[in-house]
Amino acid sequence: MEDGEQREWGAKAWTYLSSVRSLSPLIQCITNFVSMDLTANTLLSAGASPAMLHSPNESPDFTPQVNALYINVGTLSDNWLPAMELAAQLASKLNKPWVLDPVAAGASRFRLKACLDLISLKPTVIRGNASEIIALAKASFPSTKGVDSSHDSTDAVEAAKSLANSSGAVVAVSGAVDFVTDGNRIVGARNGVPMMQKITATGCAVTALIAAFVATDPSHAMEATASALAVFGVAGELGMETARGPASLRTHLIDSLHGLDQTAVISGVKITAI
Amino acid sequence: MEDGEQREWGAKAWTYLSSVRSLSPLIQCITNFVSMDLTANTLLSAGASPAMLHSPNESPDFTPQVNALYINVGTLSDNWLPAMELAAQLASKLNKPWVLDPVAAGASRFRLKACLDLISLKPTVIRGNASEIIALAKASFPSTKGVDSSHDSTDAVEAAKSLANSSGAVVAVSGAVDFVTDGNRIVGARNGVPMMQKITATGCAVTALIAAFVATDPSHAMEATASALAVFGVAGELGMETARGPASLRTHLIDSLHGLDQTAVISGVKITAI
Amino acid sequence: MEDGEQREWGAKAWTYLSSVRSLSPLIQCITNFVSMDLTANTLLSAGASPAMLHSPNESPDFTPQVNALYINVGTLSDNWLPAMELAAQLASKLNKPWVLDPVAAGASRFRLKACLDLISLKPTVIRGNASEIIALAKASFPSTKGVDSSHDSTDAVEAAKSLANSSGAVVAVSGAVDFVTDGNRIVGARNGVPMMQKITATGCAVTALIAAFVATDPSHAMEATASALAVFGVAGELGMETARGPASLRTHLIDSLHGLDQTAVISGVKITAI
Repeated sequence: MEDGEQREWGAKAWTYLSSVRSLSPLIQCITNFVSMDLTANTLLSAGASPAMLHSPNESPDFTPQVNALYINVGTLSDNWLPAMELAAQLASKLNKPWVLDPVAAGASRFRLKACLDLISLKPTVIRGNASEIIALAKASFPSTKGVDSSHDSTDAVEAAKSLANSSGAVVAVSGAVDFVTDGNRIVGARNGVPMMQKITATGCAVTALIAAFVATDPSHAMEATASALAVFGVAGELGMETARGPASLRTHLIDSLHGLDQTAVISGVKITAI
Repeated sequence: MEDGEQREWGAKAWTYLSSVRSLSPLIQCITNFVSMDLTANTLLSAGASPAMLHSPNESPDFTPQVNALYINVGTLSDNWLPAMELAAQLASKLNKPWVLDPVAAGASRFRLKACLDLISLKPTVIRGNASEIIALAKASFPSTKGVDSSHDSTDAVEAAKSLANSSGAVVAVSGAVDFVTDGNRIVGARNGVPMMQKITATGCAVTALIAAFVATDPSHAMEATASALAVFGVAGELGMETARGPASLRTHLIDSLHGLDQTAVISGVKITAI
Repeated sequence: MEDGEQREWGAKAWTYLSSVRSLSPLIQCITNFVSMDLTANTLLSAGASPAMLHSPNESPDFTPQVNALYINVGTLSDNWLPAMELAAQLASKLNKPWVLDPVAAGASRFRLKACLDLISLKPTVIRGNASEIIALAKASFPSTKGVDSSHDSTDAVEAAKSLANSSGAVVAVSGAVDFVTDGNRIVGARNGVPMMQKITATGCAVTALIAAFVATDPSHAMEATASALAVFGVAGELGMETARGPASLRTHLIDSLHGLDQTAVISGVKITAI
């Protein structure tokens, strides 16, 4: 039974990846300085077309041209926040999917408020680690430690459902198991390897990949999100086979993402309803 | 005949690379956030000395010390534009070569105008993809899609000649074949591999390399530009021999650029007059 | 005798690395755009937890949560300087160790003054190359060329002692031999390989590693600093065994840092009193 379900999800994930490769969706990325390189390379390797344009002087002309918007608050400042808000408003108004990565949401009052303000602009998907999702659901400071997750993702499932219901977004929680919920259904993706957490910006990169997958099928954001998380994880598993540490894993992960074929995706993806 | 011409260009390209290695020109880079890492590593691997200093508080003291200036508008904002303009003005006034990468020139009115304003400050070389060069030559919005080229570089040769004539700059158009023109002569460089387009910032990096080559011989900017494009392409071809995807190609490309010897350059460079 | 001393230092260095791995100190990094990726990956590979948060809107909430602060002025601007100063003030007030990398300190009057102002906020450690340390000790512009060292690190030992005495900081000077002084004692670390200078941001990355080591034992900043420099150098030496150029060295260095075991550290570390 479960095998059949997994194979169905594998086929779905392969369809999404194939669509990204054939449609090459243009993804506007307003993201942190640390992750720009890996994020752009992840999108390119998957077949998407990244564009790191953030200025409020440009979004009114540029956002209408894109297939999805990706916003990541990693190196947030009061300079960049209005740029994020304007692009998110444009995307919402234009009915373009947009995806939020609320990095370290609970690290400061300023950051928590910024994330909550962005969430009020109706993201299609929010992906964070357990601490971040819990901080957003609780909406109070202090609630978390630093940028890394100090909670297990299972702890965050209730927080994710609550956030999904209050925001209208699909919410994904990364961890040993990645959970995705629309507030009602929950699916779990069990791909990836622990060493991916020793590479900076893998979380940011997979959120960008979610934007690319969702861009090809905005009306099924939950399926696209789970598929992106699993596909990135499969690439990590393949990369791990020849990695000798986090830096070679990063290289092999991107190479694997670029080279993934139908068999690897269908046999590798481990998604199940929960 | 063509073989002799190519060998002559190969010898010229080797002379430029050797000069960069021995003179280690100091290149001030005001470039986008995505490309800073690859750009700095490209310059270091070629033997040049990169300096990512952009602040208007510093350029009056610093630009006089450099051998060339490189400006790239990738992650443009109204904060950074005055810094770019000031450094370009200083370089022009001091008769230092400066090179412009007009990333996504046609993506917005703001960006197009910024690029045209920078071009009025007399860059020595402009390098872009076909869409960018066409956008600059037409000088009207909208004219292009996103940051990737949606035109073939051959389409852009007339636009490049026109832009070279109106600006006084050498203009290079990257593509399957790279074209370089001073408005009168045209040469084509046929090096590189398609997978280089799946690595973010390879275009930005080669423009920085052009700045380093031109720094060693500012009065022959066209020859230096064609040589830099071809040498970077040869490094990519050598890197491709052992690459398993875009991320390992990036690693091998930089390793190859660092290790290039006279034989590889002279036998590998494919430049011809057109 | 010297062998015994080196083995003692090796054991000390191993203790520091083990502490970083077990305590996973949270390091706030306010650093330049070029180095963010390598810096974060260096900290993660060593077992620390990097957080690239810089906004003055956040530091009052966030700096109290961190174990050490790392400030690097590489891509300085008048926007970022107040953020650096505020975080440094908070760290000093909270008795948290903080480490300064005065990149290109002598490149402009603005930068030199900024570095001197930061030094007045009592960094625990300052690490630079010879030119940078000499520029800071002389405190006059012009004194150096670009961002790379044009002086040998031995020339800078007197400058380092003088800067250590005037500032109260431990001062480290990187070069073929790395020197560390508290103004009184001097130790030399002889690890690393020349090709590390062909990788951008290795200096920035090792300064961040110093912050992580010092975070585990703030009252012995000199020992922690020498240990971090040596451990990073050992990782470079191991990486060099299979590197084919600067880009593969970068990959192997990070992999090696992640994988370092007790034997490699104790037998590899070359630190001696001078």
